Amino acid sequence: MKARVHVTLKRGVLDPQGEAIRRALGTMGFDGVESVRQGKVIELELAESDPAKAEAAVREMCEKLLANTVIEAYDVEIEPEIQPEVTA
Amino acid sequence: MKARVHVTLKRGVLDPQGEAIRRALGTMGFDGVESVRQGKVIELELAESDPAKAEAAVREMCEKLLANTVIEAYDVEIEPEIQPEVTA
Repeated sequence: MKARVHVTLKRGVLDPQGEAIRRALGTMGFDGVESVRQGKVIELELAESDPAKAEAAVREMCEKLLANTVIEAYDVEIEPEIQPEVTA
Repeated sequence: MKARVHVTLKRGVLDPQGEAIRRALGTMGFDGVESVRQGKVIELELAESDPAKAEAAVREMCEKLLANTVIEAYDVEIEPEIQPEVTA
């Protein structure tokens, strides 16, 4: 089972990397870019096959390692894989 | 209009940061994490209101600045904002 986690800075937390991208885009002639925020996306391949258990485990990973919850927010998407076998 | 870009390493490109996360999760007792890939998510707020034009502009930004297309793949999602005004 695949899980995708987005870790982004919370609103109000300064994002210098995003601001640097916004300015670079402006100097390159891309007008109308009002704001840019940069975050991380983490894709995990899990052995767990129960979506609820997988989501709970990934949320725990976020709390303990993947996100700094003081300044970052995260969201978890579970993408069950297509099962090629026909279940009885 | 909002755009969200995912920039991830292409398959086959070594991802030491993802591998470091995978090992850290293993040492923390999270079993069954088979692989981890880390990428970037870039959220842009655009003045453009036409979704097709916005997507074309963001794809150009990806090709020119946001992604290193030799080793990175990108995908673009356009999220039109809810328009509070009633259009005539």
